[in-house]
Amino acid sequence: MELLKQRIQRDGHVKAGNVLKVDSFLNHQMDVALFGEIGREFYRLFAGDGVTKILTIESSGIGVACITAQYFGVPVVFAKKTQSKNIDGEVFTSRVESFTHGRVYDIIVSKKFLTPADRILLIDDFLAKGSALSGLCTLVQDSGATLVGAGIVIEKGFQGGGALIRGRGIRVESLAIIDAMDDETGAITFRE
Amino acid sequence: MELLKQRIQRDGHVKAGNVLKVDSFLNHQMDVALFGEIGREFYRLFAGDGVTKILTIESSGIGVACITAQYFGVPVVFAKKTQSKNIDGEVFTSRVESFTHGRVYDIIVSKKFLTPADRILLIDDFLAKGSALSGLCTLVQDSGATLVGAGIVIEKGFQGGGALIRGRGIRVESLAIIDAMDDETGAITFRE
Repeated sequence: MELLKQRIQRDGHVKAGNVLKVDSFLNHQMDVALFGEIGREFYRLFAGDGVTKILTIESSGIGVACITAQYFGVPVVFAKKTQSKNIDGEVFTSRVESFTHGRVYDIIVSKKFLTPADRILLIDDFLAKGSALSGLCTLVQDSGATLVGAGIVIEKGFQGGGALIRGRGIRVESLAIIDAMDDETGAITFRE
Repeated sequence: MELLKQRIQRDGHVKAGNVLKVDSFLNHQMDVALFGEIGREFYRLFAGDGVTKILTIESSGIGVACITAQYFGVPVVFAKKTQSKNIDGEVFTSRVESFTHGRVYDIIVSKKFLTPADRILLIDDFLAKGSALSGLCTLVQDSGATLVGAGIVIEKGFQGGGALIRGRGIRVESLAIIDAMDDETGAITFRE
């Protein structure tokens, strides 16, 4: 998606440790006009797939997921990262390792909101090593729902998560795939 | 907001300990069509106030904030609940007590995204004892930005947070204010 790549080149900052900071428009401050274009593109890609629900994970996936859901006319469910008093009853759960935060946590979704009748589109802002997305796939598969695929805003193609998930036979559509970045020069190379 | 009150009556569940579960449409599964109506109403209430940015707090405020921001044509910033490797540089910070989760945490916003030129509208899904909203007000005041007011989806009017924040001279617009609820009968009484 050309508009997104231009925005990453203009406002993204490459930091040591393979960190791409896009906090001015994606995951701290959020440009909802850009999210509208992103949502339109995900709709173009998955419009024919009978999506009944979008599943994302807190926190930074929620904004893109909600605006994308407006195009599909479906609700969003977000997986929560810790057990909360506000979720009672039974939940689907999966374990996720966060490399950004250096910890392991559980993600949970109430069983009320994922059913075998659902056709689920996963939406997230980033795909790096694939642990969060893999956890979401497991939740969907455990529920018996159909997993239509995953829509990712930025994939760090050199960190292997995309290859991992696609290797499980899951359709992954990333709007920008980064093949290399250099924190000394600031250069970002996109996959063609 | 009549549509919202009807939805709370139909799909909300009163639990022991003054808990109102609205996880089927507000804060776990999210009805983005309803969020569109909520956003439209916040826009009606604050359209004349020159809002330049919407500030919310992760996680359950983000969806409503993003869809509301589409009406205003402004970006959203969400306060984060813990220090993250992905936020470097200086941040505004405030301390918040969560009664739902029984813990105290810091909320942070990068100083890049709150400036004295900004006119900030706060958006959140719930207002109970007011600790989170109070923390957001403090962040805005520390930044030198103008605090236009706060738009809340559901206020539990009997828990004192609304009175606390309004007592600080801050405009709080809640789309549904609950004056009483009964976990034995399930009854929910709205303020007229």
